[in-house]
Amino acid sequence: MTLDTENRSMHTPENISENENLGPGLFVGLDIGGTKTAVLIVDRVLNVIGRGAAPTVVSSPEALVDGIYNAVVQTLADCGRTTADLLAVGAGVPGMVDPNTGMVRLAVNLNLEKYPLGPALAERLGVSVALENDVRAASLGAYRWLNEQTPVHYMAYLSIGTGISAGLVVDGRIYRGTQGMAGEIGHVIFEPDGPLCRCGLHGCFEAISAGPAIARHYKDGDGTAESVFLAAEQGDPTALAAIAYAAEGVARAVQLLVMAYDVDKVVLGGGVLNAGEAFLTPIYESLARMREQSDLAARMLAADKVIAAPREADVARWGAVLLALGAYNKRADG
Amino acid sequence: MTLDTENRSMHTPENISENENLGPGLFVGLDIGGTKTAVLIVDRVLNVIGRGAAPTVVSSPEALVDGIYNAVVQTLADCGRTTADLLAVGAGVPGMVDPNTGMVRLAVNLNLEKYPLGPALAERLGVSVALENDVRAASLGAYRWLNEQTPVHYMAYLSIGTGISAGLVVDGRIYRGTQGMAGEIGHVIFEPDGPLCRCGLHGCFEAISAGPAIARHYKDGDGTAESVFLAAEQGDPTALAAIAYAAEGVARAVQLLVMAYDVDKVVLGGGVLNAGEAFLTPIYESLARMREQSDLAARMLAADKVIAAPREADVARWGAVLLALGAYNKRADG
Repeated sequence: MTLDTENRSMHTPENISENENLGPGLFVGLDIGGTKTAVLIVDRVLNVIGRGAAPTVVSSPEALVDGIYNAVVQTLADCGRTTADLLAVGAGVPGMVDPNTGMVRLAVNLNLEKYPLGPALAERLGVSVALENDVRAASLGAYRWLNEQTPVHYMAYLSIGTGISAGLVVDGRIYRGTQGMAGEIGHVIFEPDGPLCRCGLHGCFEAISAGPAIARHYKDGDGTAESVFLAAEQGDPTALAAIAYAAEGVARAVQLLVMAYDVDKVVLGGGVLNAGEAFLTPIYESLARMREQSDLAARMLAADKVIAAPREADVARWGAVLLALGAYNKRADG
Repeated sequence: MTLDTENRSMHTPENISENENLGPGLFVGLDIGGTKTAVLIVDRVLNVIGRGAAPTVVSSPEALVDGIYNAVVQTLADCGRTTADLLAVGAGVPGMVDPNTGMVRLAVNLNLEKYPLGPALAERLGVSVALENDVRAASLGAYRWLNEQTPVHYMAYLSIGTGISAGLVVDGRIYRGTQGMAGEIGHVIFEPDGPLCRCGLHGCFEAISAGPAIARHYKDGDGTAESVFLAAEQGDPTALAAIAYAAEGVARAVQLLVMAYDVDKVVLGGGVLNAGEAFLTPIYESLARMREQSDLAARMLAADKVIAAPREADVARWGAVLLALGAYNKRADG
């Protein structure tokens, strides 16, 4: 994640500013969600040029590609730019992705199965497109954000939203595993007799702590996680208990990540974390109880081990930008 | 883990055999346990020259070093060799180890805390000594054993004995994490209301599935895991239930390792696995139940995902030999 600055002077006429010297080239990061595609445009030195978003169209693969293309073109147009300025594009996709081929093996929320989304987007946009699983991509964004404040080598990112997944980043590189599934701890069994998970198992971490799970723990379960946090704010004890139960699951997941990966930090993100202290406080309380009970937990789960990425860190889109940068550098090397 | 064969001819007088040509150099692998130190001696091309074992003396660090030194010297003598033939030594140590400095940060069973065991052994033996946590070292041995039959890139080794720990090996390298604690999943909480673990937490995986835990699940818990397996062999339903409960824990740990690390294979080892089919069968049954319930589990936990390393594979000592080889090559490169 260092920019090659050594060779700049080779191409530098003296009468233009540094950024102009670098040319008008732009990187685009895309966070392709089931309902919304978010766009971030940066220049060569990673200054933000523009942001945008558009609904994700999932009626067909072709419509999906059209929609994403239009979202990029519109965001570029809003900055007075065109696709001619693009250097490379990165995209986080909610599903199983082969980053080498750009093939989406399965993305239920995008209505895709075995579709070459990377090549299809590359053809429309005229530049390299790097794909990665959305949470693994966001891990890279979280790693960049974290290293702006604390230099670390080993970091896990835990995303808690509609689903739950994690990513491990070591020295700026995503650890993917053999199928790119490393970090899918949302489906680790936390309670064999617990609630049924959408994967078919019982008591998966996701069935305990994801947004929909929090809603289900509360009364008739016909609301949303947001409504549970609202009720908790009013002091509703059932809502508080539902949140505490989910938070306990998150604390257990943090412990799992630390014991399995031995990371310097665990960064929390995802939609449910937008609840802020209302969710973080019971998570930190659960971790503090572990530390009280166990010297090993005290050593491995120090109070500063866990940190929440603020919404503004925009780790999903920044991670996608870093994918774009990686794809561009790789092309330049090759 | 490839040997440099290219340069051999440079030093080869034509009238001696290849092995003699390579010189009399030997690598030693040590598995330093709380009660026994096991020794494996191999030549430069990893042919076994000798094996030995001696009680581990833990009365003081000096006595420990003396005892290990004597075990190595005796095993060498049994093969008609001396320490003058040594190229490098590797050792697996049951505790927290810094492989860069050879410092043992904490090894309760060896009665060591902040002791430079690597340098102390190196001084006595006159060669480089590479230390690693015993289970992480054994992971390397398991990786070598596994790759003799099936080429894999990502492998987790899960050791179930008096304690429980795991190791991740990627392309022949141990993944250590920031403190060398990666894989300490024996202390991941499986049941918050479960049995008290020696670490102070409740319901850790180790408190459910390690040897002493199996003994505790059975009747008054005053026997050993071996005695429970013996009772199970006689059809004792309480013993069978105790084993099934522990096996369910192992299956959950396998699932955890696969979801967190996304490995090609999980290799099982450690003392409790010496029970063979009596333990393996219920583990495989638990995994089969997960596959029946969930497409995701079926994809991630295929029937051939898990394999037990046979005792003869001697993964602990072979892992230590590979540490020695690594230390020697590093010295030769540097």
